[in-house]
Amino acid sequence: MVKIVALVGSNRKESYNKKLVLFIQERYKNEVHIEILPIGDLPMYNQDDELALPSVVEEIKKKISESDGVLIATPEYNHSISGVLKNALDWFSRVNRSMMNKPVMIVGASMGELGTVRAQGHLRQILNAPGLSALVLPGNEVFIGNIHEKINTEGVLIHKPTINFIDKVMMNFIEWMDRVK
Amino acid sequence: MVKIVALVGSNRKESYNKKLVLFIQERYKNEVHIEILPIGDLPMYNQDDELALPSVVEEIKKKISESDGVLIATPEYNHSISGVLKNALDWFSRVNRSMMNKPVMIVGASMGELGTVRAQGHLRQILNAPGLSALVLPGNEVFIGNIHEKINTEGVLIHKPTINFIDKVMMNFIEWMDRVK
Amino acid sequence: MVKIVALVGSNRKESYNKKLVLFIQERYKNEVHIEILPIGDLPMYNQDDELALPSVVEEIKKKISESDGVLIATPEYNHSISGVLKNALDWFSRVNRSMMNKPVMIVGASMGELGTVRAQGHLRQILNAPGLSALVLPGNEVFIGNIHEKINTEGVLIHKPTINFIDKVMMNFIEWMDRVK
Amino acid sequence: MVKIVALVGSNRKESYNKKLVLFIQERYKNEVHIEILPIGDLPMYNQDDELALPSVVEEIKKKISESDGVLIATPEYNHSISGVLKNALDWFSRVNRSMMNKPVMIVGASMGELGTVRAQGHLRQILNAPGLSALVLPGNEVFIGNIHEKINTEGVLIHKPTINFIDKVMMNFIEWMDRVK
Repeated sequence: MVKIVALVGSNRKESYNKKLVLFIQERYKNEVHIEILPIGDLPMYNQDDELALPSVVEEIKKKISESDGVLIATPEYNHSISGVLKNALDWFSRVNRSMMNKPVMIVGASMGELGTVRAQGHLRQILNAPGLSALVLPGNEVFIGNIHEKINTEGVLIHKPTINFIDKVMMNFIEWMDRVK
Repeated sequence: MVKIVALVGSNRKESYNKKLVLFIQERYKNEVHIEILPIGDLPMYNQDDELALPSVVEEIKKKISESDGVLIATPEYNHSISGVLKNALDWFSRVNRSMMNKPVMIVGASMGELGTVRAQGHLRQILNAPGLSALVLPGNEVFIGNIHEKINTEGVLIHKPTINFIDKVMMNFIEWMDRVK
Repeated sequence: MVKIVALVGSNRKESYNKKLVLFIQERYKNEVHIEILPIGDLPMYNQDDELALPSVVEEIKKKISESDGVLIATPEYNHSISGVLKNALDWFSRVNRSMMNKPVMIVGASMGELGTVRAQGHLRQILNAPGLSALVLPGNEVFIGNIHEKINTEGVLIHKPTINFIDKVMMNFIEWMDRVK
Repeated sequence: MVKIVALVGSNRKESYNKKLVLFIQERYKNEVHIEILPIGDLPMYNQDDELALPSVVEEIKKKISESDGVLIATPEYNHSISGVLKNALDWFSRVNRSMMNKPVMIVGASMGELGTVRAQGHLRQILNAPGLSALVLPGNEVFIGNIHEKINTEGVLIHKPTINFIDKVMMNFIEWMDRVK
């Protein structure tokens, strides 16, 4: 089965973006296997350490390398992606570059109207850097605003139009992984 | 004397951006006092922790609050600012927002030609977010490319045109701090 | 009285952004005088023509130079500002640079949720270029989504929370014009 | 033979970006046929006119639709693409969207060091908008700074490292057109 690894940009226990990934993991479990990678507590990137990589970084990079694609769920902090997510990507971009040519699908949820649009704008530019060179699914921008009104009390997405849209994007992503591999 | 605090986005021991700040600190020591704040090892930002702030974050925020302005020296990692710098800004943006209305001057150095232009583009957008609401010196973009050819063996900037340009920007910044305070 | 000139990025007869400027013009007529400048049919910018400027460009630049501030109402076309607005700014940025040090307030309306957030992100970067060097009001981002639901049949803004927010931003802009002049 | 159409963002007679396209046209004439489309004098985009499209716009859109890929050479005006280029893209994005799924290669030249890096950053975001939905070649960023020192008196690119890099990018683009068609 297609193997996808997921990165969640928020460390908050009740993170909406983590819930979104859990929803996607469950909903498409017959098409893809999704594993969430623990990027929340990596040490701070330091170029001086990159030849003796912390083992936790090493293990995560290995999982990315062995995957067929990467799902990124990003919150928006201060008009950009979180330091947590950026720090992980900084590690992945050096020595044995693990994001190289990996198909990537991006989603994001926020309580405000804007659905992390600015964070995702930055993220696409970041993923296009030579050290990352990911193959981000073109278009298919998933901005989920007012997320708190679109989930039930168990934290499960129940907003039909949003679910239908994610269905479509996921199918496009599966096709994209196949097209660019 | 005018009190400036400095943030350096790179953790590398021989960081060019740290050297740049040290140069600025020494060169303008009769006009401004610059203290480098230790943002390199902050814990990862987690909204769950923000009401019981780690003391190291608390102390740094206090110094920012008491300053007259902030100098940021940013490397460019993957077309943006580093996770290290973004993580620090994420902390500063919540509860007792310490960057609010602080005048900010941005500089950046790289070995390539581009002098961190993309990182600085992102950084200006980030600093304009409501949680930060900094007053970044308009224009005055300091992109120092080929930095390794502009310093001597002690790591001191010796490239005259660059020094002259920084002189001008620093004078503009001193005027800006006065104008917007 | 404070003299403001306004630029509208859309040429559409029933442009929501033009209606927004007309609303602002009327609402604050006791505080500021606003004149809309006709940028919609300027010739395409060509550096070869810039020393013999088309007279229509010359006249508009003169009005900007004589103003106390500039209000820009931008639609979002393809994730950025319109060609119409960009072309006008390209003319203004060369020879007798008319935007230099002008205080600028930005607003934008769209039928979608996002309220031109991406266009405004680009616009702030553009206005920070050396040839323009405008003094954009920091923060105070006016993103008006679902504009068609916030106006009455005469095209007048009637959505109270939006009006209150614009009131606040306009007061901040008047203060900003005074602070940086 | 592979049919590519080219868009040049500058109207200047001696435009470096036009010269760059002419160089590419000549150098790879055995692999691809490149036709430059006359976008420099299109009327200003107006949504009111889009159902009765100006015939010059109609013709250009037809050529794009019939092409296998699009080459865009962009100058940088005020930290972004020119109004000329943006206006053309605004037309292409509406009704019979002609850029949809077209492979795109981006190049840019400037006299300064930065080689249009900011314009290209904006351009990639623009081309990812739903109305355009182009398939921009990932990575492969061609930033040609100091262009005036890299051409001969006939305006022909003679700087070997730059030529070698463009060779590589063009081969990647030919492969990309094939991969995503």
